Amino acid sequence: MEMEEHKQVHIVEGGSVTTPKGFRAGGLHCGIKKTARNDLGAILCEVPAEAAAVFTTNIFQAAPLKITRESLTAGNRLQAMIVNSGNANACTGQQGEDDARSMRAAAAQAWGMPEHYVGVTSTGVIGELLPMDKVLAGIAGLPEAVTAVGGPAFNEAILTTDLVEKTICVRVDIDGVPVHIAGAAKGSGMIHPNMATMLGFITTDANIRAAELQKLLSEATDTSFNMITVDGDTSTNDMVVAMASGLAEHEPLSEQHPQWAAYAAAFQHVAQHLAKAIARDGEGATKLIEVTVNGAVSHEAARAIVKTIIGSSLVKTAVFGADANWGRIIACVGRAGQPVNPDTVDIQIGDIRTLEKSRPVRFDEEKAEAYLKSDTIQIRVDLNMGEGTATGWGCDLTYEYVRINAAYRT
Amino acid sequence: MEMEEHKQVHIVEGGSVTTPKGFRAGGLHCGIKKTARNDLGAILCEVPAEAAAVFTTNIFQAAPLKITRESLTAGNRLQAMIVNSGNANACTGQQGEDDARSMRAAAAQAWGMPEHYVGVTSTGVIGELLPMDKVLAGIAGLPEAVTAVGGPAFNEAILTTDLVEKTICVRVDIDGVPVHIAGAAKGSGMIHPNMATMLGFITTDANIRAAELQKLLSEATDTSFNMITVDGDTSTNDMVVAMASGLAEHEPLSEQHPQWAAYAAAFQHVAQHLAKAIARDGEGATKLIEVTVNGAVSHEAARAIVKTIIGSSLVKTAVFGADANWGRIIACVGRAGQPVNPDTVDIQIGDIRTLEKSRPVRFDEEKAEAYLKSDTIQIRVDLNMGEGTATGWGCDLTYEYVRINAAYRT
Repeated sequence: MEMEEHKQVHIVEGGSVTTPKGFRAGGLHCGIKKTARNDLGAILCEVPAEAAAVFTTNIFQAAPLKITRESLTAGNRLQAMIVNSGNANACTGQQGEDDARSMRAAAAQAWGMPEHYVGVTSTGVIGELLPMDKVLAGIAGLPEAVTAVGGPAFNEAILTTDLVEKTICVRVDIDGVPVHIAGAAKGSGMIHPNMATMLGFITTDANIRAAELQKLLSEATDTSFNMITVDGDTSTNDMVVAMASGLAEHEPLSEQHPQWAAYAAAFQHVAQHLAKAIARDGEGATKLIEVTVNGAVSHEAARAIVKTIIGSSLVKTAVFGADANWGRIIACVGRAGQPVNPDTVDIQIGDIRTLEKSRPVRFDEEKAEAYLKSDTIQIRVDLNMGEGTATGWGCDLTYEYVRINAAYRT
Repeated sequence: MEMEEHKQVHIVEGGSVTTPKGFRAGGLHCGIKKTARNDLGAILCEVPAEAAAVFTTNIFQAAPLKITRESLTAGNRLQAMIVNSGNANACTGQQGEDDARSMRAAAAQAWGMPEHYVGVTSTGVIGELLPMDKVLAGIAGLPEAVTAVGGPAFNEAILTTDLVEKTICVRVDIDGVPVHIAGAAKGSGMIHPNMATMLGFITTDANIRAAELQKLLSEATDTSFNMITVDGDTSTNDMVVAMASGLAEHEPLSEQHPQWAAYAAAFQHVAQHLAKAIARDGEGATKLIEVTVNGAVSHEAARAIVKTIIGSSLVKTAVFGADANWGRIIACVGRAGQPVNPDTVDIQIGDIRTLEKSRPVRFDEEKAEAYLKSDTIQIRVDLNMGEGTATGWGCDLTYEYVRINAAYRT
């Protein structure tokens, strides 16, 4: 099924956000971070790109999100996205809003474009004002830093405590023309609560309008970024933005286009790849946990149960300890607040059946332990009630997670 | 305010569930547990006691809960509560139900009372059948083990991985007559997901009917047992039962009685004491965290925000690390799904103000760190919107929590 859907998606090895036609990117060190790592980056499009975005649902939204929203409202087009790491510009009041606005103005001036073609995003510590002298000097240097080969430098600029860069590029042929979709992301707000959180950037050269792009992004977010959790915390700065240059020469993409489904599948592939990469790189994580719930009364119900399981500290520690502790999984199913028939639940860990019609099944503990030492753990729950299905991703809970978060600010 | 409410409550040092008139208790080792610790216990009343209970909301309710509910339905009276630890009798199907029913029948026979005067509860591993030969032999020995000084033996019989016994006894004078309320509890289902979880037993010699007792228990549960969390998991076996012998010679207690409020306050004191003791003894915990939210639009909203904060792994690890990381607290406030004015939030850790009207306040980091090394940490959030208020309790998240739960079953 998944293979079928994705059969027209080709991974572009070594691709980055600059692979889709019309995009450049780059990063530099402006001095927000004490280390020499890049802390300022940008994606630039040679034309105003059709743009879409999704934002955190946290009530305390950081200043740059407000500014980016304003830019989008002006016409749903973005030509430049700038991003800084090391400081989230969140809980910073009017001064923070003024600073985000100054960043936008400086970028617009640097490239000679209207301010509403610029989006701004920040990631890092909450509650501190940006060192604006350094930031503005850095922005003035961005036009030189942003190039056709600047994808990796951009990827570095968005990282905070992430261990690995998260990027992907795929190709899908539309009207016989190769169309690219690329993405870059940094660790989730649920992983890095005090850092700026989950950021995602998707570029594509597809010929697609902002409204259709927004629809794709919102739908893909629901089955990717919104289905990962590390510790259940949602940041003040989460944002995913998608930009479409329209430079691939195919007929405009809409739901009427015969290859809409193929493009949507490729877009979803990019979003899910980035989401899984974020979960796998969760603080202290040693394993990716993939949870699928089938047979729920609705997709909504399945999603809620998936999230309860991947969010459970007890399931997460059991996976860390390679313990096939299905009792913790069934307890999650029962407390998720969704309709469940207490007599019809099946649970499978990898291909090991541990519960059938809600009754324990004898299984080979050694085989289970060996499986739970792999780097990706699949948990499947079937409620045997309806057609609702969902999949989500998380990671194990380890000593290292406690160490990182007990010592984070100090 | 709290002092005012509790001024008529006197702590009875050395009291136990057998202190209220008419109650005896005891415990013995029947062999469910491999160690020599007591694993079977009972509370006995010399008369059929007015009884009330609250049960887990988990869909997968263990067999003994069903049997106890049946006994209560027959007339809201209990004369004996029996409990085993080491095996939860959960997810055990028809055989599990038959076993719980056999336990009730055996106890009724041992004491010569109707079956519906007996309640049954179990705590321990999920998904395994009880060793009924040992359990039934143990029950036959209970009448001898149950005595006026058997409180401590009972307390031991209900423990699983708990480090300390949790018990309290208070006295309140009603109509000039001393009335006692005592309680015993074991670790919460949210702490011990695979164990039988949070169990609470409250005895009192008050002259009170089951309906009034149920009202008191339900209300007290909402501000005590339902306001603690360790890792957010709710067990299949949670249950709190209250028994009133009626042997204290005062006028019957009802809401019309002039001292109803005094009795209710004493009852709530017992429930909150046990709840806090459970949170403090959370797996691996080194500190009790008490979170109060004031100024919410409703008590409901305040409760939801309190639970989000005490359930946050990031807040819990920050407290473990003695880090005054208010950014994690504000992020919880913003994601709790409740009405919040993003410009009016105050946060205080101990007596250290860290956020005022949603803006960071400079504070003495060393003083904050010193405070965060105490054994009880108070976090206060004021939304400055309305009259809604709530308090809840949790504990820090430590290396030891990970160790215990990664290694639990193996």
